[in-house]
Formats: sequence, structure tokens, C-alpha cells
Amino acid sequence: MKVYLAGPDVFLPKPIEMARRKKELCAQYGLTGLFPLDAKGASLEIFRSNETLMNEADAIIANLTPFRGPSADAGTVYELGYMAARGKLCLGYSNDPALYADRVARFTAIERYDGRLIDAEKLTVENFSLPDNLMMIHALDLYGCPLVVPRTAPANIWHDLTSFEQCVRLAATRLAS
Amino acid sequence: MKVYLAGPDVFLPKPIEMARRKKELCAQYGLTGLFPLDAKGASLEIFRSNETLMNEADAIIANLTPFRGPSADAGTVYELGYMAARGKLCLGYSNDPALYADRVARFTAIERYDGRLIDAEKLTVENFSLPDNLMMIHALDLYGCPLVVPRTAPANIWHDLTSFEQCVRLAATRLAS
Repeated sequence: MKVYLAGPDVFLPKPIEMARRKKELCAQYGLTGLFPLDAKGASLEIFRSNETLMNEADAIIANLTPFRGPSADAGTVYELGYMAARGKLCLGYSNDPALYADRVARFTAIERYDGRLIDAEKLTVENFSLPDNLMMIHALDLYGCPLVVPRTAPANIWHDLTSFEQCVRLAATRLAS
Repeated sequence: MKVYLAGPDVFLPKPIEMARRKKELCAQYGLTGLFPLDAKGASLEIFRSNETLMNEADAIIANLTPFRGPSADAGTVYELGYMAARGKLCLGYSNDPALYADRVARFTAIERYDGRLIDAEKLTVENFSLPDNLMMIHALDLYGCPLVVPRTAPANIWHDLTSFEQCVRLAATRLAS
């Protein structure tokens, strides 16, 4: 069974090393990890290659750790939506267990106004006690397994693979049944 | 023909007014606009309702204006991926025409290192002269129309519908043919 390994891991200083570690963990559970192309080459070529890998895969494990803001990496989120629509098994993890409203509060002032939470631009802050936007979180709930988060954020948020391994274990069990 | 009107517009102070304006513009071009539920009610109910609307729609027009960071709203991006995978016509606009690397530079220091652009966390900054992550931009290129952006950002980035109307016009032409 093949698993597409979505995430901003492609933007790490050593993406090939991370690809190797993630693929090895997959192999330990009898799965084949497919790692997206990193940010080299032409962008359209990367798009087509990633789409081909997604179409080949039986499942996605998305690294939804917040990336340059309170939410997950946009490319990863796109891929989660794509895989959900294709009926693939959807798993994801975030190495930051904080709830969305608390994540937003790190970047901007939040206040309560007229029964809602609003940010400095007066835009509503989703406040469902979920770690990120409800579309992603419930896609995982309904089409795979609930978002895997550690009890507390690991020291190395971009390299710790404990929650990733938990996703691999869940994927292996679900794909076998 | 039905068009799903994705975007962080649901988080505006008056989402129902924006829904009315967008639906009216759609009607002027012979299209039926489907506006997602706003952030009230139970989150799972919102998810299911939005998914039902997406499944009904022939196309998506996604508001990809950057939201709380350099990239588009995560929920909107998820929906774009979903609609691309379902083979629906994909359109989108951003009221901020800035390129991604320039957007990132507003939030964090960027430097050139080893042939790449990196941010303060040493994570690579995509540098393809595109306004956002390549997955979304090329999905529009291949499955609809290239991202619509104004020459310069409008004064009211969350309420100006010039680029939205351009998407409606393109959608009407494409869906008619």
C-alpha cells in the first residue's frame, strides 16, 4: 500500500534526509511512502509529479503543523482536499497541539465582540476548540482518523516524527483491514 | 450552472451581506452562487453542508487573498483541492497581487542561502514568481483559468469584488461552452 507523505517537510534544509526517515518508518509498517518533489525544478513539473504520486497512493499522511502562520502549509492543505475528494484514506498530524484561536492569538490581538472572537482586522476567528480550520479537521475525522497531536509540542517541531509514526501505524492497520 | 463561492468571506463582520453581493453578481451572468455556511452552528454540520454544496456545484470561485499570513485561507485551499479532484471547473482570485516571496518577507526576514531563499526558521521560501503555493496556482492554470489578480491591491481588500466579477465572467463563458 502506498502513502503520499504531504507536508512542508519539502522546505526543510535537508528534505532528502527527511524523505529517507519518513520512508523508512513507512517500510517498518509494510507501507511504501511517496515523498513529494522538493522546491527544485520547474513549478509545473513539480505540480504534475505530486499529482501523479497522489493518484498512485492509497492514503495521505499530511504534516499539518502550522507553517508561517496559525494554519497548516497551503500546499499540504490543497493535497488533503484533493485526496479526500478522491476517496483516499486521510491521516494527518500536527506537532503543535494548540487550538486555532490560541494559535491566532500568537500573531494578532484577539477580542470578544458580539458573541464572536475577532482579530485585529475584525475578521472572525473560528472558535470550535479545534487545532485548525474545520474543513481539514473534519475531513480527517470522516475519511481517516482524527488529527494526531502530541500532548505537548516536541522540542524540535520540524524533525520530531513521533506523531508521524503514530499516523503510519494507524494507516497500516486501516489499509490492512 | 452552480458555482461554489469559497473564501474567508464567511469570516467578515457581515458575511450575509457579502453572500448577497456575490450571489447577485453570479445571477447577472446567469450563474447560481452557492455560499458556504458561516462560522455559526456546529462545526461538523458546517463541514457536511459545505461538502454538499461543493458536490452540487459545477465550478468553484475561490477567494485566495492571503489570510492571516502569506498564503490563502486554509479552508478555502482545502476546498480548491477538493473541487480540482472532483473534476470541477476551478477559478480563483487574490486581491493581493504580490508574489509569494514578497508576501513572506512582510512577516519574517528572508535571506539567500545556498542557492535558495530561506526564512528566519531556515525553511525554504518557494520562489517561482507565483503569488502563492504552486499547487493552488497550477491547479487553476490546468483546471480552470489562471489566478485573477488586480494590477495593484484595491483599497478595501476584503470587500472589493472587481477580481471576483472577472472570475464570474470567465466561469460563465467556460460553463456555457
